[in-house]
Amino acid sequence: MRRAIAASAGALGVSSPNPAVGAVILDADGAVVGVGHTQPRGQAHAEVMALRDAGDRARGGTAVVTLEPCNHTGRTGPCAQALIEAGISAVHYAVADPNPSAAGGAQTLLAAGVDVTGGVLADDARRGPLRYWLHRIAHDRPFVTAKVAATLDGRIAAPDGTSQWITGPEAREHAHRQRARLDAIVVGTGTVLADDPSLTARRADGSLREHQPARVVLGRRDLPADARLRDGTAPLVHVRSHDPHDVLAALPDALHVLVEGGPAIIGAFLAAGLVDEVQAYLAPTILGAGSAAVDDRSVATLADAHRFRRIHTEPLGDDLLLVLESAR
Amino acid sequence: MRRAIAASAGALGVSSPNPAVGAVILDADGAVVGVGHTQPRGQAHAEVMALRDAGDRARGGTAVVTLEPCNHTGRTGPCAQALIEAGISAVHYAVADPNPSAAGGAQTLLAAGVDVTGGVLADDARRGPLRYWLHRIAHDRPFVTAKVAATLDGRIAAPDGTSQWITGPEAREHAHRQRARLDAIVVGTGTVLADDPSLTARRADGSLREHQPARVVLGRRDLPADARLRDGTAPLVHVRSHDPHDVLAALPDALHVLVEGGPAIIGAFLAAGLVDEVQAYLAPTILGAGSAAVDDRSVATLADAHRFRRIHTEPLGDDLLLVLESAR
Repeated sequence: MRRAIAASAGALGVSSPNPAVGAVILDADGAVVGVGHTQPRGQAHAEVMALRDAGDRARGGTAVVTLEPCNHTGRTGPCAQALIEAGISAVHYAVADPNPSAAGGAQTLLAAGVDVTGGVLADDARRGPLRYWLHRIAHDRPFVTAKVAATLDGRIAAPDGTSQWITGPEAREHAHRQRARLDAIVVGTGTVLADDPSLTARRADGSLREHQPARVVLGRRDLPADARLRDGTAPLVHVRSHDPHDVLAALPDALHVLVEGGPAIIGAFLAAGLVDEVQAYLAPTILGAGSAAVDDRSVATLADAHRFRRIHTEPLGDDLLLVLESAR
Repeated sequence: MRRAIAASAGALGVSSPNPAVGAVILDADGAVVGVGHTQPRGQAHAEVMALRDAGDRARGGTAVVTLEPCNHTGRTGPCAQALIEAGISAVHYAVADPNPSAAGGAQTLLAAGVDVTGGVLADDARRGPLRYWLHRIAHDRPFVTAKVAATLDGRIAAPDGTSQWITGPEAREHAHRQRARLDAIVVGTGTVLADDPSLTARRADGSLREHQPARVVLGRRDLPADARLRDGTAPLVHVRSHDPHDVLAALPDALHVLVEGGPAIIGAFLAAGLVDEVQAYLAPTILGAGSAAVDDRSVATLADAHRFRRIHTEPLGDDLLLVLESAR
């Protein structure tokens, strides 16, 4: 199952709106003969990819899948049926499918005489690449991560506007790897007008990564005709509003959205209770002046503070990455 | 030597202006028979405390000391002589005494037929409790730590002024243990007028710790007659100036000073290049409004940022402590 969870990470950002599922096929002797993850919409699910990888060696074997195999015929055939046809004799899955239209895969498998075990490492799988899709089903909106790259005193630019670079190359590289696993990156029109960002996911050598998240701009002002966001590298969505709910409504297929800024945009998502996770890259510097990372005018007193739980701390070169999840 | 370094921590804050030294006496068979650290000014040094602890068992034994034993007669007799009189046959020390008036202890011991080995774990000792005194000798001023207790976005109070508590009990307890090892705590008159702090080092149950740092207030405004700082628990020094150099000049015996705030005081010390270390207690909360932790009007562009090196990261309950040292 750990191998299946690891494999599922390859689907992040590319499988949406389908879940990032991983599957491993063991032959009758227990040797790994196939590994796969969900492909882009309309293409094969994880089980089918792993079965293709395994070929005839799947017969009499075991399928290990992070999510209960689907039972419905959508753009692709039901995975439960594919497993039966391949002669799989046992299926282990982590998380039961909460989606009524797809659920029932376990029943179908059992009816066909396949041994079925659910709940295997379910907590690990729920906190892994599946979490974004599970969040979408539970809350009817994507999982939202707010990203901050700031000095130790929470500044993102000096008084003269200079901001490149506050964090070092390791932190920036980490952020680009993250972008390649996302559905969309959200910025405000102010950020576009001030910085003209490309919001692409690039490698350290500057080349584009395979998957590019959609670029979403929030705000009423027009975008310049020559803005880098218009270069066609990835879809561009301009939401002419200041309401974060409108952004999420404009992304019906997105599972994981990153809010990059500016400060007022992050503040608006926080004020709306729409931030599920914070990724803070903190540089070992103090500015003592310049723009604050977050601007939320709705906060009046300490009891209004947005509270999180620290779940991960990671040194990235000179900087430190803190990952926090909502304490709501 | 590690035991001697650990013992020396007991002298922090109380031995000033003398160095925080630790000593261990081994008997002729190598068993530890005495441990000691420097006492308050005018009282016994570490070697004498360890010799007293060992008694007759010191004869023919070895003394392990974090600093070269002193050779001069000040308020106390020379430690080199005390070691010779106790019949010690070997002395291991970490750091040579850089103070011309006290140096020569090793020579005196050698002349008396004692085996002397210097430089033992010298780097560890230099970075340990001795560092503050070594800093004072090298730079003719105390080692300065700036303390910040802030939200993840660098705020120390909400717009309505509420600030209790941004950090949790573990972080506050840590800060109080730190205070008990310091010579002085510096705040601005603004902090005194706004918060009326006591700046005492207390235990979790509220009782006072044994050593209390001096309270130093920077600024031209008068202190209220009923300010808690006037309660006599610890010395009070009011420096009627806005220049951080004046604070340090008013503390000729201090080895380690903590600058607690407010934001403009920390900014003034940073702008003057007088911050050797930053201790940042970061809460897992975001305010998005309210006072910033540091206010330094001298910073105009990113190249002016104050740069540090992260040397320690420690979870304290829900909060995270980052310790950074100056990258100058």
